[in-house]
Amino acid sequence: DVATLDHHRALRQGVPEVVYGAGKSPAQAVAIVGRLAVRGEGFLVTRADDGMRAALLAAYPAAVENVLGRTVRLAPDEPVRSHCGRVCIVTAGTADLPVAEECAETLRSAGVVADRVTDVGVAGVHRLLARASQLAMADVVIVIAGMDGALPSAVGGIVRGAVIAVPTSVGYGASFAGLAPLLTMLNSCAAGITVVNIDNGFGAAMAALRILGS
Amino acid sequence: DVATLDHHRALRQGVPEVVYGAGKSPAQAVAIVGRLAVRGEGFLVTRADDGMRAALLAAYPAAVENVLGRTVRLAPDEPVRSHCGRVCIVTAGTADLPVAEECAETLRSAGVVADRVTDVGVAGVHRLLARASQLAMADVVIVIAGMDGALPSAVGGIVRGAVIAVPTSVGYGASFAGLAPLLTMLNSCAAGITVVNIDNGFGAAMAALRILGS
Amino acid sequence: DVATLDHHRALRQGVPEVVYGAGKSPAQAVAIVGRLAVRGEGFLVTRADDGMRAALLAAYPAAVENVLGRTVRLAPDEPVRSHCGRVCIVTAGTADLPVAEECAETLRSAGVVADRVTDVGVAGVHRLLARASQLAMADVVIVIAGMDGALPSAVGGIVRGAVIAVPTSVGYGASFAGLAPLLTMLNSCAAGITVVNIDNGFGAAMAALRILGS
Amino acid sequence: DVATLDHHRALRQGVPEVVYGAGKSPAQAVAIVGRLAVRGEGFLVTRADDGMRAALLAAYPAAVENVLGRTVRLAPDEPVRSHCGRVCIVTAGTADLPVAEECAETLRSAGVVADRVTDVGVAGVHRLLARASQLAMADVVIVIAGMDGALPSAVGGIVRGAVIAVPTSVGYGASFAGLAPLLTMLNSCAAGITVVNIDNGFGAAMAALRILGS
Amino acid sequence: DVATLDHHRALRQGVPEVVYGAGKSPAQAVAIVGRLAVRGEGFLVTRADDGMRAALLAAYPAAVENVLGRTVRLAPDEPVRSHCGRVCIVTAGTADLPVAEECAETLRSAGVVADRVTDVGVAGVHRLLARASQLAMADVVIVIAGMDGALPSAVGGIVRGAVIAVPTSVGYGASFAGLAPLLTMLNSCAAGITVVNIDNGFGAAMAALRILGS
Amino acid sequence: DVATLDHHRALRQGVPEVVYGAGKSPAQAVAIVGRLAVRGEGFLVTRADDGMRAALLAAYPAAVENVLGRTVRLAPDEPVRSHCGRVCIVTAGTADLPVAEECAETLRSAGVVADRVTDVGVAGVHRLLARASQLAMADVVIVIAGMDGALPSAVGGIVRGAVIAVPTSVGYGASFAGLAPLLTMLNSCAAGITVVNIDNGFGAAMAALRILGS
Amino acid sequence: DVATLDHHRALRQGVPEVVYGAGKSPAQAVAIVGRLAVRGEGFLVTRADDGMRAALLAAYPAAVENVLGRTVRLAPDEPVRSHCGRVCIVTAGTADLPVAEECAETLRSAGVVADRVTDVGVAGVHRLLARASQLAMADVVIVIAGMDGALPSAVGGIVRGAVIAVPTSVGYGASFAGLAPLLTMLNSCAAGITVVNIDNGFGAAMAALRILGS
Amino acid sequence: DVATLDHHRALRQGVPEVVYGAGKSPAQAVAIVGRLAVRGEGFLVTRADDGMRAALLAAYPAAVENVLGRTVRLAPDEPVRSHCGRVCIVTAGTADLPVAEECAETLRSAGVVADRVTDVGVAGVHRLLARASQLAMADVVIVIAGMDGALPSAVGGIVRGAVIAVPTSVGYGASFAGLAPLLTMLNSCAAGITVVNIDNGFGAAMAALRILGS
Ligand SMILES: Nc1ncnc2c1ncn2[C@@H]1O[C@H](COP(=O)(O)O)[C@@H](O)[C@H]1O
Ligand SMILES: Nc1ncnc2c1ncn2[C@@H]1O[C@H](COP(=O)(O)O)[C@@H](O)[C@H]1O
Ligand SMILES: Nc1ncnc2c1ncn2[C@@H]1O[C@H](COP(=O)(O)O)[C@@H](O)[C@H]1O
Ligand SMILES: Nc1ncnc2c1ncn2[C@@H]1O[C@H](COP(=O)(O)O)[C@@H](O)[C@H]1O
Ligand SMILES: [Mg+2]
Ligand SMILES: [Mg+2]
Ligand SMILES: [Mg+2]
Ligand SMILES: [Mg+2]
Ligand SMILES: [Mg+2]
Ligand SMILES: [Mg+2]
Ligand SMILES: [Mg+2]
Ligand SMILES: [Mg+2]
Repeated sequence: DVATLDHHRALRQGVPEVVYGAGKSPAQAVAIVGRLAVRGEGFLVTRADDGMRAALLAAYPAAVENVLGRTVRLAPDEPVRSHCGRVCIVTAGTADLPVAEECAETLRSAGVVADRVTDVGVAGVHRLLARASQLAMADVVIVIAGMDGALPSAVGGIVRGAVIAVPTSVGYGASFAGLAPLLTMLNSCAAGITVVNIDNGFGAAMAALRILGS
Repeated sequence: DVATLDHHRALRQGVPEVVYGAGKSPAQAVAIVGRLAVRGEGFLVTRADDGMRAALLAAYPAAVENVLGRTVRLAPDEPVRSHCGRVCIVTAGTADLPVAEECAETLRSAGVVADRVTDVGVAGVHRLLARASQLAMADVVIVIAGMDGALPSAVGGIVRGAVIAVPTSVGYGASFAGLAPLLTMLNSCAAGITVVNIDNGFGAAMAALRILGS
Repeated sequence: DVATLDHHRALRQGVPEVVYGAGKSPAQAVAIVGRLAVRGEGFLVTRADDGMRAALLAAYPAAVENVLGRTVRLAPDEPVRSHCGRVCIVTAGTADLPVAEECAETLRSAGVVADRVTDVGVAGVHRLLARASQLAMADVVIVIAGMDGALPSAVGGIVRGAVIAVPTSVGYGASFAGLAPLLTMLNSCAAGITVVNIDNGFGAAMAALRILGS
Repeated sequence: DVATLDHHRALRQGVPEVVYGAGKSPAQAVAIVGRLAVRGEGFLVTRADDGMRAALLAAYPAAVENVLGRTVRLAPDEPVRSHCGRVCIVTAGTADLPVAEECAETLRSAGVVADRVTDVGVAGVHRLLARASQLAMADVVIVIAGMDGALPSAVGGIVRGAVIAVPTSVGYGASFAGLAPLLTMLNSCAAGITVVNIDNGFGAAMAALRILGS
Repeated sequence: DVATLDHHRALRQGVPEVVYGAGKSPAQAVAIVGRLAVRGEGFLVTRADDGMRAALLAAYPAAVENVLGRTVRLAPDEPVRSHCGRVCIVTAGTADLPVAEECAETLRSAGVVADRVTDVGVAGVHRLLARASQLAMADVVIVIAGMDGALPSAVGGIVRGAVIAVPTSVGYGASFAGLAPLLTMLNSCAAGITVVNIDNGFGAAMAALRILGS
Repeated sequence: DVATLDHHRALRQGVPEVVYGAGKSPAQAVAIVGRLAVRGEGFLVTRADDGMRAALLAAYPAAVENVLGRTVRLAPDEPVRSHCGRVCIVTAGTADLPVAEECAETLRSAGVVADRVTDVGVAGVHRLLARASQLAMADVVIVIAGMDGALPSAVGGIVRGAVIAVPTSVGYGASFAGLAPLLTMLNSCAAGITVVNIDNGFGAAMAALRILGS
Repeated sequence: DVATLDHHRALRQGVPEVVYGAGKSPAQAVAIVGRLAVRGEGFLVTRADDGMRAALLAAYPAAVENVLGRTVRLAPDEPVRSHCGRVCIVTAGTADLPVAEECAETLRSAGVVADRVTDVGVAGVHRLLARASQLAMADVVIVIAGMDGALPSAVGGIVRGAVIAVPTSVGYGASFAGLAPLLTMLNSCAAGITVVNIDNGFGAAMAALRILGS
Repeated sequence: DVATLDHHRALRQGVPEVVYGAGKSPAQAVAIVGRLAVRGEGFLVTRADDGMRAALLAAYPAAVENVLGRTVRLAPDEPVRSHCGRVCIVTAGTADLPVAEECAETLRSAGVVADRVTDVGVAGVHRLLARASQLAMADVVIVIAGMDGALPSAVGGIVRGAVIAVPTSVGYGASFAGLAPLLTMLNSCAAGITVVNIDNGFGAAMAALRILGS
């Protein structure tokens, strides 16, 4: 028996159990979510490649696939308790969208539909300023950027709410697979920015849920 | 004129201007806070060495020094608008206390008095579990740890609220001045932990204020 | 002749010669183990991919394959001298199991059957505490974890026996292929933890055998 | 004789010989600049600590000291050939000023007086936008920033001219002595930004002179 | 709609919009360039693999493919405004040519035909010196080198004009995928050399266009 | 109250509480050990500089100072329970002796007197082989080396017992403050070597005590 | 024309031109060596994959393939001038043989037949000592090792002649693709060891030829 | 007794025992060299700070101090056996001279007087070419450079003899204390260059002596 699901944690923390698909076979993923589905809890599988997504959809036709985000999600039988508060997901460039989709799906699995602002990198800062009032309405802003990772600093200077920065592995050469934007974000000159792991759209969503729940 | 104070930001973001003392002379620090004090806003200076703290206290006898945290703080004339919510600062070991004090002073400058849990490193996990109910009452838990940086993972599994992890440069050898706990925290197996820069007690406090304000 | 087997070492050290399969062809592996098998010493091949395992099983139908651990093992004609003492292998998550299996097979090749504790990561520390008495019975505890690598610190605080920590390459982004848990373990706040190379289940087993032999 | 001055290069490249003071004694510095001064070429010494600057001023009362920039400069007997074009030096924060001063002094030694824009970090992007027309008038914009190093990306999106980015060692923890802003700048999402070494105000000025000379 | 093209930037900066092909599907690339082509602006796609290049050529038979540089370029209806000044691209070895071709195509898309000097690595410095007068005629010299990355230092000592250094990922072992030449170039002993990201032929060209435009 | 001593752990693990002196004032150290001394448990303080050692000796004239190892140790009132088994500490060079002394003092505080082999670096391997029989008698061999860190590989090939490798920060340049020997030891070609943090003589001793206790 | 062969260098340095096959197509390799072969100089191609080796052998049936070393070599029409002196190539393990073969082929292309010592890693140091007199006869000893890279230190303590150390990328985890043995060798406690790039059998051979020629 | 001098090695290898002063007290240094001096072997102490040099000169008035190289050397009673062959030490800049002096003193202690070429960095390559015939006369050329470390590549293309490259910690920022020139030299495009540790003038001299002795 390869996995001990921590149902307890879901109760303790009010967020769903999410299955991390990387390094599992499609059959293993189907087996694991079965234990969740049978209890009517629904499920979310992240980092699911094409084969795993196909196997999950075959077993659960009611599930929803997100190709870009590489997730499969099944709604629980009962709607989840609602979190109050608004989340906005901001991305710097097109290539950051898969991370944004993983993030959005994780929020959806907890009943939160995020607002979205796309393609507003710092190299054209007027694009960001044009969205300032939209950003101001969010309790939590999740900012996703690769390459220079400069966007969270600009966002942090505009909004009062919580800002969670997600570096991505988008880039090449001296981006060192996301190290460059990670360091940028940790050193942000905008005070009070927090950071999660490279490409960790899931983690940013979970952090937002912790805040909304508070 | 060496510094353009961003009063505008204080209004925009509801948090005080904080002066970063490192690399400034005592005279410069006194001059800069003068512009804040004269408006009745009070001030907070962080990373203030012995000489800078003495100069500030001489100029502002009503100010409060925190020796361990290396800060000097003057209360504003009017009490700051109150943030609602509770913050708890948790430290792994004795050597992490200076970072915790910088954090606590920053919170105080915004009118927030943090709860404290001290010396509960993972190597004696019963110490942490004994404080579980205290931790559960916080909206935001700030966890400060050096060396292995394992404490936020354990805290994150216990509490439902927001968790902000602060790696410290406490340690030697393969801690590489805080790199080891930084990486630990970014890879935390507890979902939804966010991270700030090494030794950045100030930043963790500002992130907590962003959350409480939301 | 590509390899000089060190039979001498086996005698000197009382542990079997183990063949490292990576970078060898199936034919080479079969040839090398032939020299061991013909002496009735049995063999263990680690890091054997699908093709190598098939070739070894075809040549030695009595050998035992471990698919997850990627090993093939043939028992020696005479049972190995028994080591006295108990070994427990603890894993943080499902994805760490291949390293645990390589470790368990290496111990088996020396006649030691390890106890197992699975899926007890620090994010749900109650799972670990529930197994405390089982852990206490071991002379050597081998703790295998990727991502934050925090588990050995928690285990080290609970048990009195020897603790060998194995970082794994499980994770992504700022885990830097196992660097993050490696640094965590080297900086463990639990005193007296020792560490082996990333993913080195074999090495941890050999270290345990050195201890049991003592 | 410890140094072979490359007068030839000055001719070849139309820029003055600059003496790098670090690691030299005051006496050595005085001796070296003597060979330049005697030819009426004037001199510039960078990275000159307090003692070296005092020695140079004692020997050359007509020389000009820059305390913040740690330089001493003596004008040549004949005014240098004038470069045509305008240079603007932009800094993110107060702590970046020493690098800006080294840069400005190097430009002055070649007869170029740079325009200046100070304290316009990305965390308050309105400060930068308010200076857009001033920036647009420059042929070369030198952008100096530490911590997150995000400023050149924002500047690069506003101006059409050449942009030279200078990372500084301002910051702590995960800035790794300037590595963080260096990587940020190399990965800038604004196209056509070029980068020089950490704290290298001298090099940025020399690059600007190469461009103006063209 | 995955991408917001920044036509505004093209106007602001006088350089064409360039599409970065990496991580896009052939269909996405065709769709994006369609929006540029329909306005008669022409297009340039970089980092386009075999499939993407085929799809673009099928859709735009008038476009020009550069196999080595992995680009597809369509000329605009109206010739672009001419930049005045000369650019020379210098490469150290055969393996650096793909980066040089990406660079040359980007320049061509702005109407600039670069001069070329090939295979003049520092290990045979007479090859470089033989081309000194050719190099001297350039306003901007772009120097592309992997392995030791020493070539820009030698070029910088010979020419008066602007020097932009491009490190490449050519090499193995301790080149660490271009880190070695990147560091070499940032530490160049020739004053006034600037540097762009590893393998960033596009960025070097854009920097040159910024200079020529000035 | 700055420190919560974990007396519980001493009971749980059979090893003494050891106070880490770095970053504490002499007065703090005296206060902390007072709580141990008053219970008759004795104490050991590591990383104690000159001032701290003087203060401890003044307060506890019966305590023993180790200048090279920078420790102060007071024996407990009752002799500690004896560990059975032999420990040998091997050092590569003179400069590794401080780490060896910290290790030996920690062992002494638990009643174990280690055997010693000094100055047997791999560059003169006959020196090591001449001590082979002495090494063979140890249950645990602690091998301490800086620079290339090659000694544990040679020792591991000679002895059957447990081998704990301690990299030291002895060296310069590409030793990167102990990173070089750390990596050497983690990659040892002798199977079953385990490793502790750079300069961690204390940790190696604690690991040995865990083994002896088993 | 993609490559300018440096025939001049061959004359200047007395060693043959060697073609680096990586990143070239089989057709390119055949074309380049044609220019050497037509002059009767013979050729050596390194880093030639299966397809390139097949193409070269088809074009030059008299050429000799080295499958393990991934080289193809054609003898020159006239025997090369003989170097006087003996070279010995020592390898630590089986997996280092490809690098040793590249090295041996490069030496052969200059008329030098190297002596060989195989599989003498430091973990069984008696294997090395048994070959001491053979090693002593060499003017240059090339020592090739991955993993801990400890072998050159042991060899350097035994022989008086020149020692060239070659780290290999053999290993996993904390070997970081050869960084571990590279650092070990640069920090060797045996004085006067020199080092070349990771896996650079070619470079070690060329260094030996420089020494023999002297 | 803190050090076991390896007189045996001196015999085995024909080079003198050299004492590494770093981390030793003046008194220790005097004691250690006493054991050498009493046998008439003379001595060389490297990395000796002001105090250690003064103590050695007081004890041995016939010894010779090298202030720049931080060494003290006493000639042996009998002149050392002469090595045949010429060594040339080449330095890139003034700041590299201390490493060159350490190197020259080590050679002198073995009876070899090195030729010198100073201040010939690659940024003015004509300076190097002007010395080509002088370089060509050396059997071994030791090339010492910091910053970009490009000089050995240029030298290696000019001379046929052995080339030993010594990176220095001269530089700042992205030189990372010598890492930049170290990587440059390991990746040299001139074939057959070998490398020693950062600032290791001693090691380069010992390597040259190994070659001359051959
Ligand atoms: N998985 C493993 N990881 C590290 N070392 C191993 C592993 N399996 C076997 N070895 C070691 O590799 C040696 C054999 O290497 P080889 O001669 O290349 O087959 C054995 O003696 C073991 O010490
Ligand atoms: N602050 C600086 N940073 C980097 N290089 C410098 C600096 N100041 C002067 N230089 C360079 O250092 C060279 C002089 O070095 P030196 O011969 O050691 O005085 C000059 O020709 C400049 O190219
Ligand atoms: N030299 C040392 N290196 C690492 N850890 C140590 C050292 N000395 C003592 N310790 C550990 O540090 C803990 C005490 O830390 P503290 O509470 O800060 O005094 C002890 O329980 C030991 O486990
Ligand atoms: N295996 C190798 N590793 C490093 N450099 C090599 C290797 N083989 C050949 N070379 C060098 O690469 C040069 C040829 O490079 P290229 O012009 O790209 O073929 C030769 O002159 C050699 O100096
Ligand atoms: Mg875009
Ligand atoms: Mg404590
Ligand atoms: Mg699990
Ligand atoms: Mg400011
Ligand atoms: Mg070539
Ligand atoms: Mg010694
Ligand atoms: Mg072997
Ligand atoms: Mg100079």
